[in-house]
Amino acid sequence: MTIELTPAVREMLKAGVELIPAIAQDAATGEVLMLAYMNEESLAITIETGRATYWSRSRNELWEKGATSGHTQKVLSIAIDCDGDALLLKVEQIEAACHTGDRTCFHREIES
Amino acid sequence: MTIELTPAVREMLKAGVELIPAIAQDAATGEVLMLAYMNEESLAITIETGRATYWSRSRNELWEKGATSGHTQKVLSIAIDCDGDALLLKVEQIEAACHTGDRTCFHREIES
Repeated sequence: MTIELTPAVREMLKAGVELIPAIAQDAATGEVLMLAYMNEESLAITIETGRATYWSRSRNELWEKGATSGHTQKVLSIAIDCDGDALLLKVEQIEAACHTGDRTCFHREIES
Repeated sequence: MTIELTPAVREMLKAGVELIPAIAQDAATGEVLMLAYMNEESLAITIETGRATYWSRSRNELWEKGATSGHTQKVLSIAIDCDGDALLLKVEQIEAACHTGDRTCFHREIES
């Protein structure tokens, strides 16, 4: 099964970009939860299903967030940036975004 | 002049990653402003100066955000994600992050 983007959404993407970084942000608190990547198909599936689906660069396959852990992301809105090569998803995160069990993957601060 | 990362910060980065996506988030409102890229030197300069400095992939050079527009980003904190290949900067954004004059680069919503 292949789900395709609508022409309108494809037009918003920068031509030739295969993997798009996608930021997941907690819609309620504004906390940035994680950054992962989408290709056209995973973005189309995300729009179609309302559940965040990424492209795993390490496993080279579609990855529905939470499919095994149950820690799914219900997508409330998707915005694309001015030059069409990054996405921002506002989500309802079940439990934790990070595989460590932390709410956010950005839990290590750099001393500055 | 080359500024280098401290060993502690370098250890947090995934080995071999040359360009790291960096999310800039408004520290006061939580709004996600933009996504750009850093290499080791631009991250080191950002830590050193407290002003967000990225690597421009289109111009292939260091890019101090706001150096020409005046729309600088004062960096209040930097976090690195669990697997060391993405950064989250909390910033004080002067005026607008986007070159269009919008506060955020993510001003186009996808209908879903």
